[in-house]
Amino acid sequence: MAIEEITVESLDTAQFIARQVEAISEAVGDGLAINALSGGVDSSTVTMLGHRALGDRLLTYFVQNGIMRQGEPQRILALFEKLGVPVKLVDARHVFFEALKGVTDPEEKREAITQTFYKTVFGQLVRESGARFLLQGTILTDVEETVAGVKRQHNILSQLGINTEEEFGYKIIEPLIQLRKPAVRVAAKALGLPEEITDRPPFPGPALAARVIGEVTPERVETVRAATAIVEDELADSGAFQYLAILHQDLVTGMRDGKRDYGEQIEVRCWESEDARTGSPTPLPFEILEKLADRITAEVSGVVSVTYNITKKPPSTIEAV
Amino acid sequence: MAIEEITVESLDTAQFIARQVEAISEAVGDGLAINALSGGVDSSTVTMLGHRALGDRLLTYFVQNGIMRQGEPQRILALFEKLGVPVKLVDARHVFFEALKGVTDPEEKREAITQTFYKTVFGQLVRESGARFLLQGTILTDVEETVAGVKRQHNILSQLGINTEEEFGYKIIEPLIQLRKPAVRVAAKALGLPEEITDRPPFPGPALAARVIGEVTPERVETVRAATAIVEDELADSGAFQYLAILHQDLVTGMRDGKRDYGEQIEVRCWESEDARTGSPTPLPFEILEKLADRITAEVSGVVSVTYNITKKPPSTIEAV
Repeated sequence: MAIEEITVESLDTAQFIARQVEAISEAVGDGLAINALSGGVDSSTVTMLGHRALGDRLLTYFVQNGIMRQGEPQRILALFEKLGVPVKLVDARHVFFEALKGVTDPEEKREAITQTFYKTVFGQLVRESGARFLLQGTILTDVEETVAGVKRQHNILSQLGINTEEEFGYKIIEPLIQLRKPAVRVAAKALGLPEEITDRPPFPGPALAARVIGEVTPERVETVRAATAIVEDELADSGAFQYLAILHQDLVTGMRDGKRDYGEQIEVRCWESEDARTGSPTPLPFEILEKLADRITAEVSGVVSVTYNITKKPPSTIEAV
Repeated sequence: MAIEEITVESLDTAQFIARQVEAISEAVGDGLAINALSGGVDSSTVTMLGHRALGDRLLTYFVQNGIMRQGEPQRILALFEKLGVPVKLVDARHVFFEALKGVTDPEEKREAITQTFYKTVFGQLVRESGARFLLQGTILTDVEETVAGVKRQHNILSQLGINTEEEFGYKIIEPLIQLRKPAVRVAAKALGLPEEITDRPPFPGPALAARVIGEVTPERVETVRAATAIVEDELADSGAFQYLAILHQDLVTGMRDGKRDYGEQIEVRCWESEDARTGSPTPLPFEILEKLADRITAEVSGVVSVTYNITKKPPSTIEAV
């Protein structure tokens, strides 16, 4: 399937929004549609488009999976409430952590999150709701990376040859499939989304689970969550494309109170990139790197060592897991 | 035991050398002494002192343990041959790798190397040689870190309460015990050692095994050896106290030829320090960091990601294992 790209330059936002709203209305008819809002720019934009097209016939769920960033559920819910878009909170933390128990392989981890999200949590919501349509924020880069085998995106089931109607009982509508991230941001702004959504660096589908090497437990997520909050705080003004903290499984030697003390290592990545296809590490001033390390080792329990990734993509990728 | 430090300022090299040579002569009498030369400044200085004191009655062994840096055995042997100091090469690679098989715990790794070195390899050499004295390059920082519990130095058995005469059959003479690294370098120069020895950054006792997180296999040592050669090549002129490459056990996602490819991660550390007790990461220019990452990912098979450590000691330590 060849998808025709709409670039930032060729994007006529008013026309794009009108067409997508119309397409959603036509597809859904007088039925119900359902979508999951993560708070990222893609799913937020889809929520706005769906809400314009369907009003109350769009059921938007915010699934608290336990692997989100600090304060994320509260922040996103408050924001959409202010926009007048109804969002329902589903607390599925225990379901996700149960599915992730003992899983260390990155592929199995993604699979556990995908299956839990689609089959267990979302499947149930769909069946209960009677909705037959799922709005999904897949963008062109996701498709290309999946096709290229770089990454298995959990949110483009049809690309993976899964018959979603048979398997999960619903159809997927992907209004952003012709856009890359910069164009999504432009559309998002035109739809009235605030800067904290439109200019937010990308965040992976498997959320903080993609930032934990090894088993994803509530404790380990809490460690990477605290480190992530510091990285996002310190690098908010960096102008970088994306910045993240990764909790390693390897333990390294450290010192506390003059004594040897094995501890954990956090890896910081901060990317310069146009669209995530290629990237290079941001040449951050050394004072910022040192401040990051100082804060993370001082404020995040158990961490004795912090590194900064200096590799380009390729051969690296944006995320480690 | 309180050890009186001889600082660089208070060091009278001629007097220090004369005293140590005399002390070694007196201790050994007309017997034989034995020592292990690693090529580091400490063991090289001890070799020179011992050679001056004992001539051919000092048996100096260079143990090829399989965990040394690229070209190291050849280089060191050639250098001492030029200095007129006889050194015997012992190939113990298989013994060390056998002892390291399946060992992943850092403490057990050090212990395996220590035991293999002292008991299996050196113990045997001592018994065969009839030597009752082992000259050892322990310096003051080693003693302090061991006492403080920061690190178990493998080369200061007596500090750990081991009765070496009973347990291994020899006595240890430690001519450098009052010095820290800068003073050792001064003494080394005065003894005629060339700059490539005297100004060489410190290197750990467990050699490249200290630079491998997880199991130490010939293949994994080869990976970190190749990365180390690049780091030492690129940072030779950095003026830093110490620079090193660490092979992680954690695998990370990478890309090769446009395809997803799990690979290994190398961590680079480059320390500013006076004496290894405290340290901070060297603020290397970003071009150098990028060049390191480019070279390591291009030249070292299997590596897709390179990080630079940005943590101070404490809470980090110089080495990771």
